[in-house]
Amino acid sequence: MEPVLESNAFFMAIEYLAIFCCGLSGGLMAVHKRYDLFSILMTSWLTAVGGGIVRDVLLGIFPPVGISDRGLVLTTLASGLVVAVIHPEVDKLKWTMLVVDALALGLFAVNGTSKALIYHASGMTAVFIGMFTTLSGGLIRDVLLNEVPAVIKDRHWYAVPSFVGCVLTVLLGKALSAGLVTFNAEMIGDVLIVGIVVAMRILSVVFNIQLPGALRRHEA
Amino acid sequence: MEPVLESNAFFMAIEYLAIFCCGLSGGLMAVHKRYDLFSILMTSWLTAVGGGIVRDVLLGIFPPVGISDRGLVLTTLASGLVVAVIHPEVDKLKWTMLVVDALALGLFAVNGTSKALIYHASGMTAVFIGMFTTLSGGLIRDVLLNEVPAVIKDRHWYAVPSFVGCVLTVLLGKALSAGLVTFNAEMIGDVLIVGIVVAMRILSVVFNIQLPGALRRHEA
Amino acid sequence: MEPVLESNAFFMAIEYLAIFCCGLSGGLMAVHKRYDLFSILMTSWLTAVGGGIVRDVLLGIFPPVGISDRGLVLTTLASGLVVAVIHPEVDKLKWTMLVVDALALGLFAVNGTSKALIYHASGMTAVFIGMFTTLSGGLIRDVLLNEVPAVIKDRHWYAVPSFVGCVLTVLLGKALSAGLVTFNAEMIGDVLIVGIVVAMRILSVVFNIQLPGALRRHEA
Repeated sequence: MEPVLESNAFFMAIEYLAIFCCGLSGGLMAVHKRYDLFSILMTSWLTAVGGGIVRDVLLGIFPPVGISDRGLVLTTLASGLVVAVIHPEVDKLKWTMLVVDALALGLFAVNGTSKALIYHASGMTAVFIGMFTTLSGGLIRDVLLNEVPAVIKDRHWYAVPSFVGCVLTVLLGKALSAGLVTFNAEMIGDVLIVGIVVAMRILSVVFNIQLPGALRRHEA
Repeated sequence: MEPVLESNAFFMAIEYLAIFCCGLSGGLMAVHKRYDLFSILMTSWLTAVGGGIVRDVLLGIFPPVGISDRGLVLTTLASGLVVAVIHPEVDKLKWTMLVVDALALGLFAVNGTSKALIYHASGMTAVFIGMFTTLSGGLIRDVLLNEVPAVIKDRHWYAVPSFVGCVLTVLLGKALSAGLVTFNAEMIGDVLIVGIVVAMRILSVVFNIQLPGALRRHEA
Repeated sequence: MEPVLESNAFFMAIEYLAIFCCGLSGGLMAVHKRYDLFSILMTSWLTAVGGGIVRDVLLGIFPPVGISDRGLVLTTLASGLVVAVIHPEVDKLKWTMLVVDALALGLFAVNGTSKALIYHASGMTAVFIGMFTTLSGGLIRDVLLNEVPAVIKDRHWYAVPSFVGCVLTVLLGKALSAGLVTFNAEMIGDVLIVGIVVAMRILSVVFNIQLPGALRRHEA
């Protein structure tokens, strides 16, 4: 699978949107904990680009785009500044933020997995890197703010939709490189995958669908 | 020191066994905290391959085997599934788990240090990478579950046997590359080193042997 | 900008001094929490070289100097041993430690940023890498000891002087490579930058100067 210009432009756009969404939600947590402006900007930035930094390090890309792409960095800093001002509005928009967060989940899954495929990772490795891209930002944010990461604590589906999205992206990428689908079809497919991830996440919260835990047995 | 097929096969076997042991102990902690199945699998996986991922990143090997080796990944997921079912039994086996954990400690020390030597690291760097391999998995697990890492909190010997094992592995590796020992002797030596690490760890817990802390003085 | 011998020797000296200061302050925290000698040494070492390890990983330098430079490693272990013995004296020297810590802040900012420039990073990337070098050590220490990192919690200026120092180092580096300043002038400039960082940090604590947090509004 060769990277093509359209594909890259498309994924850059995806990345920017996801980055801004993540920056908002990351910065909001720092606002709630009453940290100063620098900590808000840093939390926005790390939440937004943390996944991409882990992705690039695991792929051996140095320096990672999270510290070298001017556009990405400015986007995250902007999201931090925005949330420092409009946090009361953002707070009221619980369901909007859930959707925005789910959107970032889907966008990062497609973006991280695709980049891994472009760098010739195997399907399994691409799924892992896609999931790292999706989950690392929030994980770093929670570790920094000294909380158990949401991805571990939250019993609603969060990692599961990310996993499904990454697997579907790998399948679509394999289909593309096998000549089974066209580039245009692949982009439509990517949008569909994002939609599936968003739907899974939101339905899980709305209908309180949870994964089972460890088997409870009489001996327990 | 050139990697040889026998040596690699031997160390692969070592790695798989240690991986499964670590996955069990990692997943068990997630079970105790009543997290869902995905979090159990993720904790098993990260505890088991976290050390290897840190080792490979520090050696500049991308992508790390923890996300690219199908066998390793399936082993960790299997260990997570197993512990999600048989956790009541595992809970009763406190001393067995101590031994299993000590075994993983020894196996990772030999494995991590050997891999660093194969990649032409100096003796000191190999000791560090061996210790990172040994300690990072549990450390990542504890940071994720928001606890002070066991390696820092536990006053019984944990890092000390790992250090001794890594240093002995370096000495053995240097002896091998100097032609002082044969490959067969080296493998026997590796087994002995694992035995020494296991013995040190278990004796420290059984007889409550501790490292001193900072010097307590009258002025304190 | 080509690395020159004098420049490297100068920065090596800077690095050693900063490393020892950081090791003292890192080890002191482990002493206060009554951890054993190994944990003290490990905390000293990770606090001191953690920033450099993150810097080298982001620049793609493997293995990082934090585990391969004999001098650096011995310096950090020495700082751990020293603080395990003289911690009552170090405790009394609150203001001395503040200055020492501020000095490490300035030294790491100049050192990390310069190394990034030497490895052909762009100005923005160099600032990020300089800040990672400055802040990661303390951040890793606090995450390990299960506290919210000082850089996030502390409302006094900590990251801000680091940022200013990194930006000034980039400007000075650009001036050097444009032939606007001589090597000697650059070294004097580096010393001045360290002085500015130290002054900003200390003045912020003495006069209780803080960054604002998020905008407080009536709707909040």
